[in-house]
Amino acid sequence: MSKQGKGKQGKQGKAKGKQGKQTIATRAADYPQWYQDVVRESGLAEPAKVVKGCMVIKPHGYAIWEKIQRDLDARFKATGHQNAYFPVLVPQSFITKEAEHVEGFAPELAVVTHAGGEKLEEPYVVRPTSETIIGHFFAKWIESHRDLPLLINQWANVMRWEKRTRLFLRTTEFLWQEGHTAHSSHEEAKQEVRRMLDIYGDFAEEILGVPVVRGVKTESEKFAGALQSLCIEAMMQDGKALQAGTSHDLGQNFGKAFDVKYQTAEGEMEYVWQTSWGVSTRLIGGLVMTHSDDNGLVLPPRVAPIHVVIVPIFRNDEQRERVLEAAKSLRTQLQAIDIAPSDCRYRDFLEVVIDERDMRPGAKYFYWEQRGVPLRVELGPRDLEKGQVCIKMRVDSAAGEGKQFLAQDEFVAGIRERMLLFQNELLARARTRMQEQTVTIDTWDEFLKVFAGEQSTFAWCHWDGTAETEAAIKAQTKVTIRCVPLPGQGPEPEEGKCVFSGKPSRQRVLMAKAY
Amino acid sequence: MSKQGKGKQGKQGKAKGKQGKQTIATRAADYPQWYQDVVRESGLAEPAKVVKGCMVIKPHGYAIWEKIQRDLDARFKATGHQNAYFPVLVPQSFITKEAEHVEGFAPELAVVTHAGGEKLEEPYVVRPTSETIIGHFFAKWIESHRDLPLLINQWANVMRWEKRTRLFLRTTEFLWQEGHTAHSSHEEAKQEVRRMLDIYGDFAEEILGVPVVRGVKTESEKFAGALQSLCIEAMMQDGKALQAGTSHDLGQNFGKAFDVKYQTAEGEMEYVWQTSWGVSTRLIGGLVMTHSDDNGLVLPPRVAPIHVVIVPIFRNDEQRERVLEAAKSLRTQLQAIDIAPSDCRYRDFLEVVIDERDMRPGAKYFYWEQRGVPLRVELGPRDLEKGQVCIKMRVDSAAGEGKQFLAQDEFVAGIRERMLLFQNELLARARTRMQEQTVTIDTWDEFLKVFAGEQSTFAWCHWDGTAETEAAIKAQTKVTIRCVPLPGQGPEPEEGKCVFSGKPSRQRVLMAKAY
Repeated sequence: MSKQGKGKQGKQGKAKGKQGKQTIATRAADYPQWYQDVVRESGLAEPAKVVKGCMVIKPHGYAIWEKIQRDLDARFKATGHQNAYFPVLVPQSFITKEAEHVEGFAPELAVVTHAGGEKLEEPYVVRPTSETIIGHFFAKWIESHRDLPLLINQWANVMRWEKRTRLFLRTTEFLWQEGHTAHSSHEEAKQEVRRMLDIYGDFAEEILGVPVVRGVKTESEKFAGALQSLCIEAMMQDGKALQAGTSHDLGQNFGKAFDVKYQTAEGEMEYVWQTSWGVSTRLIGGLVMTHSDDNGLVLPPRVAPIHVVIVPIFRNDEQRERVLEAAKSLRTQLQAIDIAPSDCRYRDFLEVVIDERDMRPGAKYFYWEQRGVPLRVELGPRDLEKGQVCIKMRVDSAAGEGKQFLAQDEFVAGIRERMLLFQNELLARARTRMQEQTVTIDTWDEFLKVFAGEQSTFAWCHWDGTAETEAAIKAQTKVTIRCVPLPGQGPEPEEGKCVFSGKPSRQRVLMAKAY
Repeated sequence: MSKQGKGKQGKQGKAKGKQGKQTIATRAADYPQWYQDVVRESGLAEPAKVVKGCMVIKPHGYAIWEKIQRDLDARFKATGHQNAYFPVLVPQSFITKEAEHVEGFAPELAVVTHAGGEKLEEPYVVRPTSETIIGHFFAKWIESHRDLPLLINQWANVMRWEKRTRLFLRTTEFLWQEGHTAHSSHEEAKQEVRRMLDIYGDFAEEILGVPVVRGVKTESEKFAGALQSLCIEAMMQDGKALQAGTSHDLGQNFGKAFDVKYQTAEGEMEYVWQTSWGVSTRLIGGLVMTHSDDNGLVLPPRVAPIHVVIVPIFRNDEQRERVLEAAKSLRTQLQAIDIAPSDCRYRDFLEVVIDERDMRPGAKYFYWEQRGVPLRVELGPRDLEKGQVCIKMRVDSAAGEGKQFLAQDEFVAGIRERMLLFQNELLARARTRMQEQTVTIDTWDEFLKVFAGEQSTFAWCHWDGTAETEAAIKAQTKVTIRCVPLPGQGPEPEEGKCVFSGKPSRQRVLMAKAY
């Protein structure tokens, strides 16, 4: 096997027996177990255990994160943002400067009390998010309207001491990006909040193949310290929602807390208007739960760490040598193919592995299916004679059904298009599923039926707009208001009656259980 | 001014007055102050102050780090390494498992004692380096010789509570990459240690334009817990050395501490042989101190965040409009040019800024010179008429001396080559400087003269091989043994007498004061 594949196997596969299907639970039988099994068997991550609630992101998982970073980062830069890096430790007193912020984050903080062998005069917290420390520096950097807008992004690790954790979806430490911007008017800040939400939404759909609903969080669900939070919500295969990205209008709250003022063109001193926005390694959890099946991981090519696995088929050493030589030549051809769009600022070469391990071909097929490699090539002596390859897509789709025999030249010439077809197909399937599982509910009886037990789906319901109703619904059913849809993202506004209280409502909101 | 440049100016520039040369000390007058001034005025970083010894890496500095990451990461992947991510917190007891390791790092640890509102049963330390926690997971992942070699790298932040800090060169938190590998034989591990050192050396020279000496650390200077540490040492303009990267042969020390065993092909259980290697944001400090001059930062194109600044020249609105239109068209042409070598796995497009600010051209020239932009274009109405541009390189060199007038087409067609010429020129200059400032010293009197006061240079001296002599030299002169040169990296081995003790020596070693 080539270097690429090494270190992704080992103890775990063995301990479970060679390739029994029983290593992954079915979605129907036990959905949460299925998710854990897929993440483990595909080698994406594992619980750290010795560090409470943390995870180790293994090479196959980290490679997905790198592809996420690469594409998002290009989108941020294309819209004028610059990356910077701020300290991982934040003076504890900073967190308390914005009243709602401290209330939201205080219970989740990890605190450094000692350093360099001494007790610190003031403890530091490991950043749960960086509005406060970045606010402090914005106050130093911003003086005049000519310094605005200030458009900063940070790629970083953050820590929130969560009680219940789940790989990728909720861990005490996670990796993310956090955008922080300052503007001279509320209008401009609001445009930024919306621009970044759309970047998240477009990215989720175009690159992850994850369709999303774009909307506004309710007061109860918004970010601690924001005026308003926008979000993208994705539907997992169990009908639950995953908040996949948020973009916040911070108003002047942090500007006032950290005294971030600028001089207007007219010479007045004003507080800046700020935004923040972020997505995290949680996206990988959403990716897994959107596309994968009972055989394991399914990945869209734009985020797949490995696009093609070549499995050589042979019966003796002489065949082995010929087939491996042909496999290497094929790999060289494929690796030179860039599947990025023509206007892309980065290269996206096909990643190809030849699996030379001393195992039965069937076991190899199973192994790479679990890991979500989009395309498998089987290559044997007869294929060489005929100048053909036998290919199989990870999921039967418009990009290919079952095993297909293709002339090798034709296969190489068409692989870019085939990958993009597969990419689009995965999005289309996820979109169809989301549409089919989204319902409109008008009565409380029906609501209780739809959300009975662990069941969930996306439901458009009227809501009376009160936090009391929202809390009562959550207490009774665990269902939350995922968002009030932005224009075009849900049913048109209409008069109606709250599904719970019967009081008047002018717009349906998206309700679901959530991760 | 385009988005690219925004947020890099503001308060500081103003507070110092428009463009007085006095904002940067001369190297001759005060070298340490010069370094601080260059870092500040070029907008690379600033001390965090509110977080002891930490820094904020500002956009212009972080963009350099991104270019460092991009190229190094491609080199790591080309040699079969995979990225992963391990927790930022390490159980305190892990650090104590390897005797030398705990001795080296215990005094520098930042300790998390409370989290989620409770006192922790066992404190965590913020990773100062990750041998211990990665050793723990290697023990879980490695079972058989078929799992080896395991070649992992991590890009991460680390924390070492240093008493005296200096931007980039030594900060309590810094960004780095740490490679961690496990092998089935000591021979293979040693090859890896050397392979990675050469990657660092080649990278430093080819990309940063920083020439280095490759060598072996003495016992006193090696990594805490290693059998042997290799290093690259660069010479700063004040003659001091900067350890710019290290690669460690860990032997079986961590394998034994964390019980990392594998089954050999013969069925025996053996401890793995491990390596670790790293470079950090310290490289940016070395880059600054290698090329910069009394006018500010000088950057090689392969790591320059901005390659070209276009300064429009005009006297009235009509001229302004025409010139800006031409400048934008020129920018579009330049931005499509990729200066990466043809076999490069990433794109390296020219980054171009048009400085539209309402300032005198001279002030703009000064501003962008301080920031190390390799090439300036002045574009006025007369240039448009003649179809020409006026260009000036940041440093007079083979890539261009003084102001030059070139046909615009010719300029665009030749810019890639001009950038690579400038890249090579900076390396050549640094190499010449290092060679000219490197001396051979045979007597203690001469040694004391060369290293008097704050003076330093690279000196090849005989050493008797004892830690006592090494310590005595350091105590008297602050000079340390930077390394024992690898073959071809210094004078050929020869019989001689220790410069301090007069005892026999068989090889000269590199001595210098160091950062």
